[in-house]
Amino acid sequence: MDDEPIQLTKHHGAGNDFLVLVDPDDRHPMAPAMVRALCDRRFGVGADGLLRALAGRDGTDLAMELHNADGSPAEMSGNGIRCLAQAAVDAGLVAPPSFTVWTEAGVRSVEFAPTGPGAADASVAMGKAELGPDQPQQFDDRRARTVDMGNPHLVLLGPDPAGVEVADLGQRLQGVHPGGINVEFISVGPGADQLTLRVWERGAGETLACGTGSAAAAAAAHSWGLVGERVAVHNPGGTLEVTLGADGIRLAGPTRKVADLEVVPAEVLAAARP
Amino acid sequence: MDDEPIQLTKHHGAGNDFLVLVDPDDRHPMAPAMVRALCDRRFGVGADGLLRALAGRDGTDLAMELHNADGSPAEMSGNGIRCLAQAAVDAGLVAPPSFTVWTEAGVRSVEFAPTGPGAADASVAMGKAELGPDQPQQFDDRRARTVDMGNPHLVLLGPDPAGVEVADLGQRLQGVHPGGINVEFISVGPGADQLTLRVWERGAGETLACGTGSAAAAAAAHSWGLVGERVAVHNPGGTLEVTLGADGIRLAGPTRKVADLEVVPAEVLAAARP
Repeated sequence: MDDEPIQLTKHHGAGNDFLVLVDPDDRHPMAPAMVRALCDRRFGVGADGLLRALAGRDGTDLAMELHNADGSPAEMSGNGIRCLAQAAVDAGLVAPPSFTVWTEAGVRSVEFAPTGPGAADASVAMGKAELGPDQPQQFDDRRARTVDMGNPHLVLLGPDPAGVEVADLGQRLQGVHPGGINVEFISVGPGADQLTLRVWERGAGETLACGTGSAAAAAAAHSWGLVGERVAVHNPGGTLEVTLGADGIRLAGPTRKVADLEVVPAEVLAAARP
Repeated sequence: MDDEPIQLTKHHGAGNDFLVLVDPDDRHPMAPAMVRALCDRRFGVGADGLLRALAGRDGTDLAMELHNADGSPAEMSGNGIRCLAQAAVDAGLVAPPSFTVWTEAGVRSVEFAPTGPGAADASVAMGKAELGPDQPQQFDDRRARTVDMGNPHLVLLGPDPAGVEVADLGQRLQGVHPGGINVEFISVGPGADQLTLRVWERGAGETLACGTGSAAAAAAAHSWGLVGERVAVHNPGGTLEVTLGADGIRLAGPTRKVADLEVVPAEVLAAARP
């Protein structure tokens, strides 16, 4: 399989970008080295992660397999699943307005509405947030708590995230949480029921947006009485809408297709890296 | 034109990556906003620059139009022209083993040898280096001189470039040189006739390799008596070979094709950025 070109599409949700391989017959398993080669932004195509759109499982319409840019597996991505939905709709695997997706974090329902060529709005039911206790944290006086969104998050409240050394702090906080953790630096505002966020994702570093991170941030801020149940989360790459409902959290935002790609065979790509 | 998909290829030379548009009939002029949208690594495809392969001028086989990732024009890129050569050979516009390319910095001859699927070795006659006088520079005690390779360079000699704050220093040095300058931080070694280099390119920031920068570095180091006439320049993304001859400088190294791309229409791509 490694000596064939690979057909991919590139998408992003608020600047959180993904390569998608539509592979309903499970013909192209993705080894970590291949994921790294494809997601490398200089020697490969470049993306925050790679998704495989597989045939549904356990009665779902579709299944998602998620790989971080560093080749490690991940359970769930709120922007990733919205990008996967766009690729799967384009390929005719599923049809709007709604369908279900199996993920490692559970079954997710997606609402999908095309808005123009290469453009769509998509929302996803993210399940419930499991809030950890408030906790001290050693870097400054921010309020903090862990949030489990199917993947682990640490939400840190403080002043404007623009001044935070995200890469440095994000990296340092990994040691504290076995298995790694996604870290969200948030402030309240600029408007009512709004948050401003920067995020460090394990396996990808700082990204321009994070869907599960936006949901975790809204849930934590709501638990601290800072926002209501409908929250606009301003990520560096765009705004995501989080709704905190009794039946779980819904994440909504735009998805965009960037390109169709035919990538050179895996062995050629991998051989070029120093 | 902006409502049609765009066919591109992505290539790199030692990790210095370029999008190439083969456009012999000059049908797709590239406005700065479009270049920025395509070269954006999150909202677009991503690359250090974009090249158009145009029909030859003044008797050359091919012409190169070079855009930096920020949309600004540039005269010449040693890795860019080697990537352009690969795309033009693949498209049947020119044939190995050698052809001539018109550039803003003058006519360049290219030697091109395919080495496998998506892989080639390519060398290019870079013209002569115009050495400026040794000059003091305000950041540390490194030896420094400007070198004109058709585009402007500042070569700074010092200890291991691994410890240099390239982004910070590169940015600060722009104010000193009207119109901007490419900055090479070099040390001698690790072997004889070898240099180790990191580079900050105006219009692109730090890149993994720079062809004209490697040539400028070799010329400066030779002028200081530190290396001979055949120099291996270790860029972060790979090694480039520079030969300093009486008739000019030749730059050689590998080029790799990464992917064929069909990008969504320009207006769609541009509309997605925040």
